[in-house]
Amino acid sequence: MRVWELARAGDSTRIGREMYEWIEDLYPLCRSMTGEGLRETLRRLARLVPLTIQEVPTGTPVFDWTVPREWNIRDAYVKNSRGQRVIDFRESNLHVVHYSVPIHTRMPLADLRPHLFTLPGHPDWIPYRTSYHEERWGFCLSHRRLLELETGEYEVCIDATLGPGSLSYGELLLEGETSDEVLIACHVCHPSLANDNLAGVALAVQLARELAGVSRRYSYRFLFLPGTIGAIAWLSLNEPSLRRIKHGLVLSCTGDAGSVTYKKTRRGDAAIDRAFTRTLQERGDEHTVLEFSPYGDERQFCSPGLDLPVGCLTRTAHGGYPEYHTSADDLALVHPWALADTFGKCLAALGILEGDRTYLSLNPKCEPHLGKRGLYRRALERGPAPDSQAMLWVLSFTDGHHSLLDIAERSGLPFQSIRAAAEALAAHGLLAEQGVIAPVPAPVNSRGARDGSRLAG
Amino acid sequence: MRVWELARAGDSTRIGREMYEWIEDLYPLCRSMTGEGLRETLRRLARLVPLTIQEVPTGTPVFDWTVPREWNIRDAYVKNSRGQRVIDFRESNLHVVHYSVPIHTRMPLADLRPHLFTLPGHPDWIPYRTSYHEERWGFCLSHRRLLELETGEYEVCIDATLGPGSLSYGELLLEGETSDEVLIACHVCHPSLANDNLAGVALAVQLARELAGVSRRYSYRFLFLPGTIGAIAWLSLNEPSLRRIKHGLVLSCTGDAGSVTYKKTRRGDAAIDRAFTRTLQERGDEHTVLEFSPYGDERQFCSPGLDLPVGCLTRTAHGGYPEYHTSADDLALVHPWALADTFGKCLAALGILEGDRTYLSLNPKCEPHLGKRGLYRRALERGPAPDSQAMLWVLSFTDGHHSLLDIAERSGLPFQSIRAAAEALAAHGLLAEQGVIAPVPAPVNSRGARDGSRLAG
Amino acid sequence: MRVWELARAGDSTRIGREMYEWIEDLYPLCRSMTGEGLRETLRRLARLVPLTIQEVPTGTPVFDWTVPREWNIRDAYVKNSRGQRVIDFRESNLHVVHYSVPIHTRMPLADLRPHLFTLPGHPDWIPYRTSYHEERWGFCLSHRRLLELETGEYEVCIDATLGPGSLSYGELLLEGETSDEVLIACHVCHPSLANDNLAGVALAVQLARELAGVSRRYSYRFLFLPGTIGAIAWLSLNEPSLRRIKHGLVLSCTGDAGSVTYKKTRRGDAAIDRAFTRTLQERGDEHTVLEFSPYGDERQFCSPGLDLPVGCLTRTAHGGYPEYHTSADDLALVHPWALADTFGKCLAALGILEGDRTYLSLNPKCEPHLGKRGLYRRALERGPAPDSQAMLWVLSFTDGHHSLLDIAERSGLPFQSIRAAAEALAAHGLLAEQGVIAPVPAPVNSRGARDGSRLAG
Repeated sequence: MRVWELARAGDSTRIGREMYEWIEDLYPLCRSMTGEGLRETLRRLARLVPLTIQEVPTGTPVFDWTVPREWNIRDAYVKNSRGQRVIDFRESNLHVVHYSVPIHTRMPLADLRPHLFTLPGHPDWIPYRTSYHEERWGFCLSHRRLLELETGEYEVCIDATLGPGSLSYGELLLEGETSDEVLIACHVCHPSLANDNLAGVALAVQLARELAGVSRRYSYRFLFLPGTIGAIAWLSLNEPSLRRIKHGLVLSCTGDAGSVTYKKTRRGDAAIDRAFTRTLQERGDEHTVLEFSPYGDERQFCSPGLDLPVGCLTRTAHGGYPEYHTSADDLALVHPWALADTFGKCLAALGILEGDRTYLSLNPKCEPHLGKRGLYRRALERGPAPDSQAMLWVLSFTDGHHSLLDIAERSGLPFQSIRAAAEALAAHGLLAEQGVIAPVPAPVNSRGARDGSRLAG
Repeated sequence: MRVWELARAGDSTRIGREMYEWIEDLYPLCRSMTGEGLRETLRRLARLVPLTIQEVPTGTPVFDWTVPREWNIRDAYVKNSRGQRVIDFRESNLHVVHYSVPIHTRMPLADLRPHLFTLPGHPDWIPYRTSYHEERWGFCLSHRRLLELETGEYEVCIDATLGPGSLSYGELLLEGETSDEVLIACHVCHPSLANDNLAGVALAVQLARELAGVSRRYSYRFLFLPGTIGAIAWLSLNEPSLRRIKHGLVLSCTGDAGSVTYKKTRRGDAAIDRAFTRTLQERGDEHTVLEFSPYGDERQFCSPGLDLPVGCLTRTAHGGYPEYHTSADDLALVHPWALADTFGKCLAALGILEGDRTYLSLNPKCEPHLGKRGLYRRALERGPAPDSQAMLWVLSFTDGHHSLLDIAERSGLPFQSIRAAAEALAAHGLLAEQGVIAPVPAPVNSRGARDGSRLAG
Repeated sequence: MRVWELARAGDSTRIGREMYEWIEDLYPLCRSMTGEGLRETLRRLARLVPLTIQEVPTGTPVFDWTVPREWNIRDAYVKNSRGQRVIDFRESNLHVVHYSVPIHTRMPLADLRPHLFTLPGHPDWIPYRTSYHEERWGFCLSHRRLLELETGEYEVCIDATLGPGSLSYGELLLEGETSDEVLIACHVCHPSLANDNLAGVALAVQLARELAGVSRRYSYRFLFLPGTIGAIAWLSLNEPSLRRIKHGLVLSCTGDAGSVTYKKTRRGDAAIDRAFTRTLQERGDEHTVLEFSPYGDERQFCSPGLDLPVGCLTRTAHGGYPEYHTSADDLALVHPWALADTFGKCLAALGILEGDRTYLSLNPKCEPHLGKRGLYRRALERGPAPDSQAMLWVLSFTDGHHSLLDIAERSGLPFQSIRAAAEALAAHGLLAEQGVIAPVPAPVNSRGARDGSRLAG
């Protein structure tokens, strides 16, 4: 089975349900840029797909950056004068500003106040905050709870460690017929946030599981990275082999109820840009295609000195929904159907990348006689059948200047119809892949089969 | 007289009426891909224009194809048990599936039924069907008549021959000032169908008659071909001289009441594409310009190994009207005014091809002094006269990178105004055609003529 | 102070009022293509800016043209039989057709009539007419006054001289850091017309005064020219140094209440075209950007043999308002606020030309660590601050293929934000101007300043 057949064959109900279950399992873990929560997440993923967990020691230089100290947290709270936990890390791992330095002291509310972060516009939600690059500490809480805090003395405790250790990430390579790679990356450094982080992680896992079972022209490399520093570290440590990456995709926020958004690579006209644009057009559902903007991990892959063709697939774009980076990005925000829908479109786009190639007509002067090869509609039927249409388009444009995707775009026919037509014509010796020795033509029967169904989609 | 003057001078009432009369004359003949009906059609055309009738013997290999056996039909009918002709070729030559093998037998309706073709959606119309590539036989009839057929035994007769012979086509070359050619092709293989086939034939004949009387930069080659195989045969037999073809056009369905449609060449930016696009824009009538699609004979001319810049001119596009390929494509579907309108637009586009060239300004630093050459509006008139506008545009863009058509497109002025302005400027030694030795400038009178009417359109 | 700071710092009330006062002062003078009125105008301008008045003698050949005789006028009138001046040059200098030959005679109204010009559609306005290229004489008057003229004998007098002299123009060069020039031209040959001529003159003067006080990358050359022949003469006499002109602009009709119109250079994609298009988009006010058309003095600068990138800035486009070239183009048609608005937009566009350059990232593999250089938002703030956004865009596109203006266009961010971000990054050794030796990077403090306000706009 080839990738494009998989795209049609999948059981979307099962596929969506599985992804949702993995998200449920991972949701409670306290992931961060480094540390045990991240490591445990990768271990659980390794039970689903055979990924390798890599560790990069603190202090390792990675391009302009340095791998940071490892942060681990056991507990964190603010207790009031009656000893009650009014802010409690055990309730939600969002309550602590990630990468807070340890602290255990007492202070009046007035002193505590600058360390408390809320969202007054969404008074029931806890924001998600980090302080990676400055030594600070803080708590996040709902604005409603902040308003309930009485003046008085509070016990403040963040029982965390920040010290030498390592940055963890997961990597998996599915080898294909060629060593040319498709890179699929997601970030895995956010605590209990469902859409932003776990939906992308689940989608990457599901893609790896399904692609493992089919013939692949490309090798597929999956990366489960802490955001920013993880991408930079991986790129820095793998620079010599980056030239293998022909197409790349960052997955993020892929499970909400919004429509699919594809953000183009920095180049703007890469094959993956065209594959996703075409897929979303063919599906016809509401969707958005955005030009590149330098946000998200894709900007590291696309940076001028590396210039990898890496796009980004989301549903509602990064930051475009109010629950983004808050406690409301929870299990209710993601949906099995949405996860399955993103998965299907992603696979369809990969099916275009897998199937696209440039053929040359071996019979380029006037149309070849399709009937005598059994490639044409029955003579008494009026109008060309869909496959015949695709064959005529392919024969008219296999001039060495048009790939199958070019022909799909010009014709408006589905890419996979164009590919199937091209393969049928190639099987009859009418086309050869550009740069590949022409196959020996199949023998032509003088009158031809009457039934074009061999080509039927 | 030049082609563009012809475009303005024509008497459209006479031109349309003549074409309609030729269509009336040819309508009853039973044309097919080969045979006497086709041959008689070409003979009658040869009385209107000096075309040569060519015959290509059955069995001649033409690219991937072979010239088929010749088909001739004397009679065909289905008689009921009372001996009445319930389907009668003498009533309409559409009643027989063209290229049916001969048959004379009796059979019950149940056995006859699979050989009968109707249009249930248009119960009074007879469809037009062929079976060129399979040895079959059949009849076409109105659905209403089919429903009247009683069960019982029928006598079935197709008195046809299918054997060695030749494929006929007509060809006419009008030599011009250069051996560069404009190819004008139409198909002439359809029986009693008026718009699809005869309208295009009549238009080609009228173009040949009118162009014969004027000075032509280009040579014009007219082809009256059986569809598909005729085009393939001609191309195959004339391959060495195809390089002379600089522009080409297929004419088809040019007489119905719909608006004009021009379908571009495979290249999409050929000079003829731009000439027709510009013409239709300048005329301002409702019209359609379509991108290339691989249907119609134009796909043979445009095939990747030949890549001739051949577009297609229709009114309602091929297949876009319900009467297409039915008995309703009759003399009532075509109109003298519509034939004349298509003719006029076609001639205007040819006038652009004839008139387009690239000039170089011989006085490129600042504007030349037009007044002292009598080329400018009278000094006390406010605002530039139309011709002055065209001259200013020409002088600003005769930099070697813009042809007159480019300048017409940029300026929005009519192409022929731009051409006339350029010729006036060239006559005063201010422009020279690129690649052509500059003419000796006309003497400049020191004060200039006061009247710009020499340039008036 | 740099040009772009000036664009923000100006006091638009003062700027507009000053321009209006200069227009009031110059309005009564009887300017023409040559002569004392033009010379006096230049003398008054020379009190405002240190321009040089150049004189080109009658008969000097300038490209295809010849500098004309000088025209001076003392008086002109038509008197009725009662000796009353019914048309009086002293009332308005538009009453005489400019460049009329001298005449003093008597004639009946019937003979006089062909020499009288009016605007029947605007019966109260006096048209503005010239007869530069033909030896004629004539008067302009309101249509209402024409209708009042009684039949009878009239005394006709034009006390003018037309003889050897010179063509005058003003020139001013503000030298900048480089000898690359921005050319700013206006025409100064119209009599009492306020918007068409004096508004552009006042704007050029104000630009020269303001630009004189700031650091300039470019040299700025200001030309105050008689229309057409003045531009041709200047170009002809300065041909060897035209290669210094990198950007150019014709100013005309810049003071009316309509919205701003920018007409592109003949090239259509020159830097000045993009600078004005971007400026007008960023400002967001109603505006128009037109493609080049060969009218106005810009067509001399843009002519194919010179091909200078000279655009044209107006408010309501040349000829687009009914008062154009009539006595109604008076002091009521121009407004201090409109003059100031045009001035501000012009300066903003010049600010883009001054600030645009192409940088190369010196740290092109992944994003550099901005935080450790004090270049990033405080870590606990959510979302990138505007300057951070601009920095990310700059870092993603300083690949040698994108100038700062390209990046502004791609990002949709204001050009000056992009420029400020690039300068901040360059100051930290993260960028170097393409083709310029990389500066020694500023020392990086290990933790970085916490406050990004150094970059604030």
